[in-house]
Amino acid sequence: MNHFLKKALATFGVIAVSVSFIAAYNVQAKGNSFNQATTLTTKDSTTTQNIKTPKYIFLFIGDGMSYPQIQSASYYLGANESNGGVQTQKLSFMNFPVAGSAQTYDSTSFCPDSASTATSISTGNKTYSGTINMDTSKTVKYETIAEQLKEQLGYKIGILTTVNLNHATPAAFYAHQASRSNYYEIGQEMIASNFDYFAGGALLKPTGKNEDKTSIYDLAKASGYKVITTQKEAENLTATDGKAIVIAEQLADSDSLSYSIDAESNEWTLSDYVAKGIEVLDNEKGFFMMVEGGKIDWACHANDAGSSINDTIALSSAVDEAIKFYNEHPDETLILVTGDHETGGLTIGYAGTNYDTYLTNLNNQKISYAKFDSNYVANYKANQTDFNDVLKDIKKEFGLLTSNDQEALLAKNANLVLTDYELNQLMKAYERTLTKGTSKQNEMTQEEYALYGTYEPLTVTITHLLNNKSGISFSSYSHTGLPVPVFAVGVGSELFEGYYDNTDIYNNLATLTKVK
Amino acid sequence: MNHFLKKALATFGVIAVSVSFIAAYNVQAKGNSFNQATTLTTKDSTTTQNIKTPKYIFLFIGDGMSYPQIQSASYYLGANESNGGVQTQKLSFMNFPVAGSAQTYDSTSFCPDSASTATSISTGNKTYSGTINMDTSKTVKYETIAEQLKEQLGYKIGILTTVNLNHATPAAFYAHQASRSNYYEIGQEMIASNFDYFAGGALLKPTGKNEDKTSIYDLAKASGYKVITTQKEAENLTATDGKAIVIAEQLADSDSLSYSIDAESNEWTLSDYVAKGIEVLDNEKGFFMMVEGGKIDWACHANDAGSSINDTIALSSAVDEAIKFYNEHPDETLILVTGDHETGGLTIGYAGTNYDTYLTNLNNQKISYAKFDSNYVANYKANQTDFNDVLKDIKKEFGLLTSNDQEALLAKNANLVLTDYELNQLMKAYERTLTKGTSKQNEMTQEEYALYGTYEPLTVTITHLLNNKSGISFSSYSHTGLPVPVFAVGVGSELFEGYYDNTDIYNNLATLTKVK
Repeated sequence: MNHFLKKALATFGVIAVSVSFIAAYNVQAKGNSFNQATTLTTKDSTTTQNIKTPKYIFLFIGDGMSYPQIQSASYYLGANESNGGVQTQKLSFMNFPVAGSAQTYDSTSFCPDSASTATSISTGNKTYSGTINMDTSKTVKYETIAEQLKEQLGYKIGILTTVNLNHATPAAFYAHQASRSNYYEIGQEMIASNFDYFAGGALLKPTGKNEDKTSIYDLAKASGYKVITTQKEAENLTATDGKAIVIAEQLADSDSLSYSIDAESNEWTLSDYVAKGIEVLDNEKGFFMMVEGGKIDWACHANDAGSSINDTIALSSAVDEAIKFYNEHPDETLILVTGDHETGGLTIGYAGTNYDTYLTNLNNQKISYAKFDSNYVANYKANQTDFNDVLKDIKKEFGLLTSNDQEALLAKNANLVLTDYELNQLMKAYERTLTKGTSKQNEMTQEEYALYGTYEPLTVTITHLLNNKSGISFSSYSHTGLPVPVFAVGVGSELFEGYYDNTDIYNNLATLTKVK
Repeated sequence: MNHFLKKALATFGVIAVSVSFIAAYNVQAKGNSFNQATTLTTKDSTTTQNIKTPKYIFLFIGDGMSYPQIQSASYYLGANESNGGVQTQKLSFMNFPVAGSAQTYDSTSFCPDSASTATSISTGNKTYSGTINMDTSKTVKYETIAEQLKEQLGYKIGILTTVNLNHATPAAFYAHQASRSNYYEIGQEMIASNFDYFAGGALLKPTGKNEDKTSIYDLAKASGYKVITTQKEAENLTATDGKAIVIAEQLADSDSLSYSIDAESNEWTLSDYVAKGIEVLDNEKGFFMMVEGGKIDWACHANDAGSSINDTIALSSAVDEAIKFYNEHPDETLILVTGDHETGGLTIGYAGTNYDTYLTNLNNQKISYAKFDSNYVANYKANQTDFNDVLKDIKKEFGLLTSNDQEALLAKNANLVLTDYELNQLMKAYERTLTKGTSKQNEMTQEEYALYGTYEPLTVTITHLLNNKSGISFSSYSHTGLPVPVFAVGVGSELFEGYYDNTDIYNNLATLTKVK
């Protein structure tokens, strides 16, 4: 049923479920030339139901999170739960009654970017990679579901992320820019949105590309926003404080929140910001809250499975806050959990381990690739550290052993001992890391690019080796074309069943809330 | 809701949808120690509906077919449809109103095998990899949904596959064996099942391991089966012929049906066998038909994306036959389309191509890896063929060019020209192919295994290169841990919503049909 028919029916408070399509395709490969049309019409249009507008809407987006990220986290928890055995431990949202699928291609590519995919989710339109809420001619601006809910229904709006508040995904709920890199302009639109609660990492380029403009933070204050930069202030924030921008006190790589694997025990995580968001946004007219787990994507770009899994679990914990709220308002709440695209081509399985996995090996990883880069590799480069000393750090932070290590003798560590071939890979990578940033940088060969992408050769080789020894692998440093799951529970969740385009996430929300 | 409650309610002809769970997990990695319990209870138990037993049940299983196999076929068709552009062209079943997800782990591994996963689907039990319808002690036999439907409801049963009729997946609907390799015993159980219509590739070991037993085919005839081995006979088969076993006339690798990419235009494909199956099984009491697209798995094991995509499209064409039947009997039919596990770690995306894909490059592949092995590589080995002559065949059958080829000058072929690095990989692989089968075979290094698995080094390197130049890659030669989609349309399809274990496919079928 098309979007407009749905909306028309929705105005009568009734929705009829009916599916009709023509499957027509023409394959050109040898031996498969056919042009076929088979039409299916489901007759269960008797399934009518009252359509109700959810007063409280949660939209969780795991950036780069598709089936592999979710299932690997779930199996990792299950393996730990069963002491290395085979067991699944579902993340909370995996138990939602609805789990549809959304295709993520954009107007540029089957491997789309976060700006275009978030545009699809927030406005129902496909556009070019890199573009935020504008059409492919980059002249027409699209209104977002968040803007519509605020303007037309008076909902309070919350935008939360573990990365920068003017990064592509959060921006796609309030900004309209030909390029996701227009950080200052995005920041200006953030303030102009008049949305109620922003929480996440610091703004990128808050004073513009040339650092010569009035700070976005100052503009925010002038517009009546309370700008908060300490955890103490965040804890004390209440609804009576009015509009607020909360920047995490402890900032990590690129001024984002810490990876979950790196976070200190007293450090606020995404779930704390969600809990606070519920507190300040809850009101008689309703609210819409978009929550991005943005560093799942960053971890998968870098092929760091341990950090991806930990940040996926952290997103699940944030969803738990919404579930608690849902349990109190089951007849008025809708929770959606989805991804914008898959990142890295993550697979649970690897050529070298065949049908075996050793997911508990990932417990040995104590640090994200990014923190290892900043805390260790920077020093190695400055001091040209001896490889044997580097190996000691690798053992401490990732658990990888050489046959010289005493721990290598223990049976339980057998799979963590580097073979000569692997040790050689690591050594080559370290040599390349020491020359990176010198004139040799431009000499990256096709083979080296496949091995390291644009990452520190040493660090990405460490995570590759630990991944592979855990029975996990990646195929890319970019996004891939896998569809994403759409988990739904609550008012209107049944609309999110089936296999559809990511634009239907907006379409269904618009149908439910009757915005236009 | 647990299975037994569902069954209890089903006896009253009513099913109440209600979900309740506890999400409890304990992560041991640093910085993530928590033990949390959040309970969600959906309150939409008001959604009650009459439960009706589908009289006609189709269960399609794409072996090794998960999201990547389906989406790559869909995007491949879309790219062809739009002349290399970005567009999706959904396979028929992707438009079904229900598209749930099933976790596939078995009692052995997160990367399970086809015997155990088919056991889960057909009986609702997890068991060890390699085991067919027996428990993990290998003493208790499980009755299958097909057996129950025949015995308790008098349904006619059809078992169809593109691979051997006593291979793991089809066997899991009629046999009970501690090992999937007990081909003769499985053949005996096939005959004893008294099922009505078998169609597919020839039996493996029809006279036993030592070729000293009475042929299964003779046993079949003695039990009243009409055994058919020509396409002409198959075309002439009618319901009045009684029980039938139809073996494809044209057999390919391991006596299976041809890969779709290799099939002659007049050769019967899976959809022809399904159409015939509907004709002979249709009767007043109803029928159950299991249809396996078995060579998607074989193609993905060999990392042959072109053959995987073409066989996935062929499975979709077979589903179209069921859709035509559904359109005539919408109130009595259920169609399910699922996979048993993912194979190969297929990703739409590759490190070397970043965000780009070139899916129409796959049009240049004219032959499956298996037929290339038998039609070309066997001769190369016998004749120690010159590498330059091999390159000519590779150009003809896979479209890969060297800079010496005139076609390399055309802009549209730019992406098909092998770089020096790639040509060198191909040359090394050919050298390894020429030494394979000699004493050097046992010297396969860790690096070589990652590159070639157990396949012909030359052939698997050709498909790797064409895949990568199309923006596609594989991470394994085995199965992986991705969940599989479960598409459903028709009577009872709503039970297949959500994210569950593959055992729930049986559980839901049992609930709907009230077998026990």
